Amino acid sequence: MPPTSRRAGSVAPLEAAGSLIVVAVEIPEKALIAKIRRLAKSTTNAAVMTGMGDDCAVLRLQPRIGERSKSKQKQNDVLVTTDFSLEAIHFRRDWHSAETVGHRCLARGLSDIAAMGGEPVAAFLSLALPRGLPKGWVEGFAQGLLTLAKRYGVTLAGGDTAQSPDGILADIVVVGTLSKGKSVFRSGARPGDQIYVSGELGGSAAAVAEMGKKAKRRLNPLDYPRHFRPEPRIELGRMLREKGLASAMIDTSDGLSTDLAHICDESGAGAEILAEAVPRAGVGKPAREVSLELALHGGEDYELLFTAPRSKRIPSRIAGVPITMIGQITRGRTMFLINENGVRRELAAQGWEHFRK
Amino acid sequence: MPPTSRRAGSVAPLEAAGSLIVVAVEIPEKALIAKIRRLAKSTTNAAVMTGMGDDCAVLRLQPRIGERSKSKQKQNDVLVTTDFSLEAIHFRRDWHSAETVGHRCLARGLSDIAAMGGEPVAAFLSLALPRGLPKGWVEGFAQGLLTLAKRYGVTLAGGDTAQSPDGILADIVVVGTLSKGKSVFRSGARPGDQIYVSGELGGSAAAVAEMGKKAKRRLNPLDYPRHFRPEPRIELGRMLREKGLASAMIDTSDGLSTDLAHICDESGAGAEILAEAVPRAGVGKPAREVSLELALHGGEDYELLFTAPRSKRIPSRIAGVPITMIGQITRGRTMFLINENGVRRELAAQGWEHFRK
Repeated sequence: MPPTSRRAGSVAPLEAAGSLIVVAVEIPEKALIAKIRRLAKSTTNAAVMTGMGDDCAVLRLQPRIGERSKSKQKQNDVLVTTDFSLEAIHFRRDWHSAETVGHRCLARGLSDIAAMGGEPVAAFLSLALPRGLPKGWVEGFAQGLLTLAKRYGVTLAGGDTAQSPDGILADIVVVGTLSKGKSVFRSGARPGDQIYVSGELGGSAAAVAEMGKKAKRRLNPLDYPRHFRPEPRIELGRMLREKGLASAMIDTSDGLSTDLAHICDESGAGAEILAEAVPRAGVGKPAREVSLELALHGGEDYELLFTAPRSKRIPSRIAGVPITMIGQITRGRTMFLINENGVRRELAAQGWEHFRK
Repeated sequence: MPPTSRRAGSVAPLEAAGSLIVVAVEIPEKALIAKIRRLAKSTTNAAVMTGMGDDCAVLRLQPRIGERSKSKQKQNDVLVTTDFSLEAIHFRRDWHSAETVGHRCLARGLSDIAAMGGEPVAAFLSLALPRGLPKGWVEGFAQGLLTLAKRYGVTLAGGDTAQSPDGILADIVVVGTLSKGKSVFRSGARPGDQIYVSGELGGSAAAVAEMGKKAKRRLNPLDYPRHFRPEPRIELGRMLREKGLASAMIDTSDGLSTDLAHICDESGAGAEILAEAVPRAGVGKPAREVSLELALHGGEDYELLFTAPRSKRIPSRIAGVPITMIGQITRGRTMFLINENGVRRELAAQGWEHFRK
């Protein structure tokens, strides 16, 4: 997750992680969290460029006064993001192998770095284990996590461990970096900008829907790769940032409708999405296309959703990932979905709540 | 906690958090954790100066090649530490008010920054709440945490929230900074160096022992301040680093015997401690001195334990905190305790396990 809300509607700041597991949620918590955010504002210092309200916090760690050199420095900004992976909330041992839990745990954090256009550097794992956990579980978890870490040159540099009172509890922190002032925020979208998304949507939510039908039967991870082994779009995020193509960016962890709402809220704009243009994932075997509903509202695909001015030419494939134009940013604050007959209806952000009935 | 072991013996790397609550622990976990550390070594990259094995990880975030300026840069190193605070493991709601849980949660992380001689900058809070939590709890927790954050100029810059399957789960990340290459590590102690500790020891463990006797009766936090509202020794750590006084440093989160063992292990040395010199806390009302046992092995006092060459003059008070010389670093790998009659006996690291019977 982001060091910020984004998970459950645009108001809440420190927000509930985008869980796909079916759990009833008490909403009063949101108000309390909003309260923490308000209180936390009183703690803001100059080193924090962006705190709550984006995929990562951006820190600018200046040398102290008196230690500053006079030359113009090419300093780096520091990105920080933290994400829970809690048993029974974010994963189930009867649904997810230890290796996929480890992979998904780190992928969530890496995806937040990608959404800022950053380079991941180090990860920190806090891991609390319940008694009686089969020994092989931790090994599988570590394998999944570390294999992904190595692929992106990320060092597992520390963390914490404890005994858990109940269930496996993991919290991953990813620290990244990029050149000073180069982060891509959620807030940069302007009316007229076109909206793009990488890859395909709804594949991860389709796996959850499928597992919810037949409890305890595991799916073949190869048939649902975006759910079991989502590949963070690090290279894509970096290229969009380096070439200055994206005006705003977020990862699709909560679902297109919710994540787009975050961009709209932070940018003070609205959006129109073309239903037919939304790229729907093919899942299962034989592969079938997911419903428009899942593609619009299903979370945890970890694709990149970004906007770009019309003057920018966006290739149809970047860093090996297909890029699809799905709509445009508008004036006003409302999101609309336009169907194949040109009929417009309002599009509500419902990604996060969708799986919580 | 540190981005590293330190919690449960010197071998384990990502180590179990120094809990004071009485819980039986399965030790096989340690071996698994050691395995994660070994596996994690394969992920090391150049930006991580110190990973597991100190109070904080030290990251050096160089500008990318091609973006480096030719001038000699006064860059800062980045410190990162993460610490769990889990209900029933690190605190109990019938023992600890929400406000003290919030204070202690952040104090643990700040103390790790202090132990490196660093300046804290930002904190990230991952917080999972169970259903049915009284609304006032989160507000009290936030108040305790944010009051401490403000006192040290630390911004709460983000985090994550989720529903908890059981009990309150918090994980705090603190990011700090200091000038490049100036961190004080655990590994710098040399034979002949003198050993110092700030404040008094055993006060926090005394509170736990007391509460263990009479379940559900809360103590008056004012009678046990190092347990309920430990003040991280940020200013002391900064002054020791700035004046170049400390050769090695750690905070006493696991207890003197265990934390000193970490310094000895990382420095390849032994130690002699003078039993009479160990400053024992006065607790309760009327105040009474804690036992030598508690002062040697009780954890969570969050004082600073450091070594300094004999050539350095160490004031008896720094930044308002009393400093006591308690022994010296020796050759060999063993720790000894010398009593008032000059009798030497081996001192075993038992801080962490002490409360786990």
